[in-house]
Amino acid sequence: MSKHYVFAFIGGDRRQIYVINGLARCGHKIRAAGLSAPELSEIGGVTLCSSPASALEGADFIVLPVPYASVLNSDNINTPLYDREIRLSELFANREALDGKLILAGKVDERLSTLAGLAGARTADYMEREELAVLNAVPTAEGAVKIAIEELPITLHGSQCLVTGFGRVGKILCAALKGLGANVTAAARKKRDLAYIKAFGCEGADITRPLPSPEKFDAVFNTVPKLIIDEAVLRSLKPDCLIIDLASKPGGVDFEAARRIGRTVIWALSLPGKTAPLTAGEIICDTIKNIIDEQAR
Amino acid sequence: MSKHYVFAFIGGDRRQIYVINGLARCGHKIRAAGLSAPELSEIGGVTLCSSPASALEGADFIVLPVPYASVLNSDNINTPLYDREIRLSELFANREALDGKLILAGKVDERLSTLAGLAGARTADYMEREELAVLNAVPTAEGAVKIAIEELPITLHGSQCLVTGFGRVGKILCAALKGLGANVTAAARKKRDLAYIKAFGCEGADITRPLPSPEKFDAVFNTVPKLIIDEAVLRSLKPDCLIIDLASKPGGVDFEAARRIGRTVIWALSLPGKTAPLTAGEIICDTIKNIIDEQAR
Amino acid sequence: MSKHYVFAFIGGDRRQIYVINGLARCGHKIRAAGLSAPELSEIGGVTLCSSPASALEGADFIVLPVPYASVLNSDNINTPLYDREIRLSELFANREALDGKLILAGKVDERLSTLAGLAGARTADYMEREELAVLNAVPTAEGAVKIAIEELPITLHGSQCLVTGFGRVGKILCAALKGLGANVTAAARKKRDLAYIKAFGCEGADITRPLPSPEKFDAVFNTVPKLIIDEAVLRSLKPDCLIIDLASKPGGVDFEAARRIGRTVIWALSLPGKTAPLTAGEIICDTIKNIIDEQAR
Amino acid sequence: MSKHYVFAFIGGDRRQIYVINGLARCGHKIRAAGLSAPELSEIGGVTLCSSPASALEGADFIVLPVPYASVLNSDNINTPLYDREIRLSELFANREALDGKLILAGKVDERLSTLAGLAGARTADYMEREELAVLNAVPTAEGAVKIAIEELPITLHGSQCLVTGFGRVGKILCAALKGLGANVTAAARKKRDLAYIKAFGCEGADITRPLPSPEKFDAVFNTVPKLIIDEAVLRSLKPDCLIIDLASKPGGVDFEAARRIGRTVIWALSLPGKTAPLTAGEIICDTIKNIIDEQAR
Repeated sequence: MSKHYVFAFIGGDRRQIYVINGLARCGHKIRAAGLSAPELSEIGGVTLCSSPASALEGADFIVLPVPYASVLNSDNINTPLYDREIRLSELFANREALDGKLILAGKVDERLSTLAGLAGARTADYMEREELAVLNAVPTAEGAVKIAIEELPITLHGSQCLVTGFGRVGKILCAALKGLGANVTAAARKKRDLAYIKAFGCEGADITRPLPSPEKFDAVFNTVPKLIIDEAVLRSLKPDCLIIDLASKPGGVDFEAARRIGRTVIWALSLPGKTAPLTAGEIICDTIKNIIDEQAR
Repeated sequence: MSKHYVFAFIGGDRRQIYVINGLARCGHKIRAAGLSAPELSEIGGVTLCSSPASALEGADFIVLPVPYASVLNSDNINTPLYDREIRLSELFANREALDGKLILAGKVDERLSTLAGLAGARTADYMEREELAVLNAVPTAEGAVKIAIEELPITLHGSQCLVTGFGRVGKILCAALKGLGANVTAAARKKRDLAYIKAFGCEGADITRPLPSPEKFDAVFNTVPKLIIDEAVLRSLKPDCLIIDLASKPGGVDFEAARRIGRTVIWALSLPGKTAPLTAGEIICDTIKNIIDEQAR
Repeated sequence: MSKHYVFAFIGGDRRQIYVINGLARCGHKIRAAGLSAPELSEIGGVTLCSSPASALEGADFIVLPVPYASVLNSDNINTPLYDREIRLSELFANREALDGKLILAGKVDERLSTLAGLAGARTADYMEREELAVLNAVPTAEGAVKIAIEELPITLHGSQCLVTGFGRVGKILCAALKGLGANVTAAARKKRDLAYIKAFGCEGADITRPLPSPEKFDAVFNTVPKLIIDEAVLRSLKPDCLIIDLASKPGGVDFEAARRIGRTVIWALSLPGKTAPLTAGEIICDTIKNIIDEQAR
Repeated sequence: MSKHYVFAFIGGDRRQIYVINGLARCGHKIRAAGLSAPELSEIGGVTLCSSPASALEGADFIVLPVPYASVLNSDNINTPLYDREIRLSELFANREALDGKLILAGKVDERLSTLAGLAGARTADYMEREELAVLNAVPTAEGAVKIAIEELPITLHGSQCLVTGFGRVGKILCAALKGLGANVTAAARKKRDLAYIKAFGCEGADITRPLPSPEKFDAVFNTVPKLIIDEAVLRSLKPDCLIIDLASKPGGVDFEAARRIGRTVIWALSLPGKTAPLTAGEIICDTIKNIIDEQAR
């Protein structure tokens, strides 16, 4: 990626500052709107703009935050570091500047694709890239480790931990827990995954069958976004077992039943941005570079 | 797998003894031909038979070795532990006993499928199962570690190792080398794999581009069955760099060039059976149980 | 340790509950004063007493908490789980019951020894035992890991950590940080320790000389109770380097200079009881068993 | 160590070549006698001498090999890489050149000290230095790992290993075995060591009491130079348990009983020089530098 581009950044939290820093260090120029942070003015190659229209001037790529829209008013771009609102319509009014361009955003949905399409632009969701998902598993695992150390009255070292699911987060979390001396059981469905679990020195459990000795676990970490830890499983765990749900959207724990039976469940979402915003920003930056790289071919 | 079956074993090396032992311990009956070893008579539930025909009596499943045919005379079944030859035709003459049965074998090829088909039987290749391939990566990695300790004048601890390919063997070998304190670089093609390499604490290298500093490596372990370590790569390595090729069939090293330039290459094949026959047998046994299990559903 | 004893417990925090639980599970009888917690009444073999005099009835050993005296009024026994004060003099008035007995306590000082001596009793400091100090290094290291994950904007994985001192906490902390994928440099004085540091896969640094590249560190963990991180070292670190001081008493960081220069220092003391009270209690319990065991020989 | 010295090397095996190489790279001058190897002439700053007398010319330090005397004829210096014998008396005849000098040698005994003393020289045994002993534990552990992979029919991964003794070799070997995924029990005497064993994630066993379940071990590695694995222990192990004795001098296994009962014992001595001569040479080189360094203060 020897060519240098101009990126228009509109909105975002601290992670976006680190993304900008990373791209600027590679020699790219940044035009930023909807972002204000003292560090920004110290990064060479960054121009602070007062409006999306100004940021788009001469831009090769447009970068929206993750998630791209504000949670409070989804008609607005997500601008937690800015004291003014920016409406999505304000960005997409700039048809000429957007025509033929690529908009990089986190959690792209149909509305964003449609708005982009109407303006002649394409979208790419950097949060959907697999390399990002794998690398984000590292801060997610560390965030989970932190919660477990905080909540458990015992050390992770020597404890019995169950990880349900052996996808990206499951794999990396198992390694982190083992790295701290925990005894790790990982529950998965595929024979292939169960083989990897054994080869990586963990105990395997067939997730489609009842757990062999559920009462032994001190902590359960769920990574599967499906109902895995249902009432029957909850009842089989010991009363003071800590349950940390890392799965997005519906989650994997019957929270209602847990409350009723009296089990402690912590639903820990979006850990990378909370646990390690700088690392999370660098991961987004590297992923954006990969996307640009592939576009250029 | 609560049901008990009768297995006919025809031929095989020491691994097959361990497979038989494992199945017998689960309550299955074994009828064995083309195998003679003192331990066999000590395993309960094993009947030694003097011919394939006798072994097939009442058998639910037939198990052939890996590879199923002798290397010297491929018309014979592979019977290294037997003092007599058994022709494939001798087995397949028993059409009635084979009809509707499943033949489990290692490295099934078209001929075996055809012979089985003509006899009304089906085949399943246990060596092709992914859980076996993953678990076999463990003895393969240990075999590679042993060779490296043996051949290198330095310790693996503190050494610079390159692993090309991040499939099953690559993943497990990286973990083993790191476990001994080596500095590990892994070369892969996919962005996803490069992300995992980083997440698992190794250095990543894009296998499609020239290595960043090839002269630093003390040992190179190839796991890709394609020409990866070509003359250019060989010339870029330091003269006393040890190269161990773990890739099957064509291998991944230009052996001819290596000899010409004077690089040490060790082509290490079939390590599981050599390094850890008991473990390799247990892995085959577990895989056969999985296959039977799935048949029964 | 097949013999069963009667232990008088006077005062203590939650750890003491776990110590009592552990001893009771071994068949010992407990008479507890200055402790009230719902769980206590559920542990078989525990008698709750209304005064030290009552607790001492028939006691073979007396167990005081860590520290034995209250921080607010050191004339009182440390009884954070009790709504009434117990004066030290109230305990030591029972000369007859104490005569010839062993008092096990944490952080025994001259006053306690003298008081015990006047009553004809001996003291043993379980916090001074080396096996306790080694095992306590595990919750200390996990507590430090938790703080670092919490405070750093990056993941420990891939970060550059410096650990000063390679005693108990240093050794275990290095292992924990490496287990999470950090790059660890450990600074020590003895050649022997520097050799172990290298053998355990960390970078070594001679603590008596200036650090080779101090600006690379993301986090510094001090374990030496001497001024190690002085103003010169503080100035050589990068401004956003996190400094965690785990050393007791005087600490190892020039806090005043740190504040002046603007470096973040966290002085983290007594982590075992805070991070993992149950584990800390079990460690004390095991240590008390060892002491009793040795007495019995 | 900025000053440059002249070292006289007399005799030695391949390790000595690496020691010379390391010292020459630091700018020291070498005068070598009793050593002939093609590489030597390629190292800058090395002068090959035809006699000890010539090597001693202008030498600041004299370096003898490990062991310093030939095993076959102990009146000779150990010169396996030389086609001629060099008598000890030939060296010590050079009183003037030796007067006031320091002779660095491996396994110094009373005779060498006396001879040196008569010549007005002092001796230092680099093999006795603790940093060397610690660092040598790394190649020793790798050598033991290699033997175990070679001899066991199973993988170390998932196996049950017992390490007796938790000194230098014990500690490093436990880490190496765990790094390959073995389940490690370490037997020690001191409570402190048992605490470290637990803290490092191994199972501890009190070496002064009978092993809890001796029949479970697949391999036993002894590191204690005292009779630890006596007939009773040998009988308690399973018949195919592999025993590797790493202890010097008397060893720690009752070899006679082992032969009688039919247990496989491998007495593996001097592994560093055999497993990793280059690493072993570098360790000696670093140790010699430390000794010189301390002399200079």
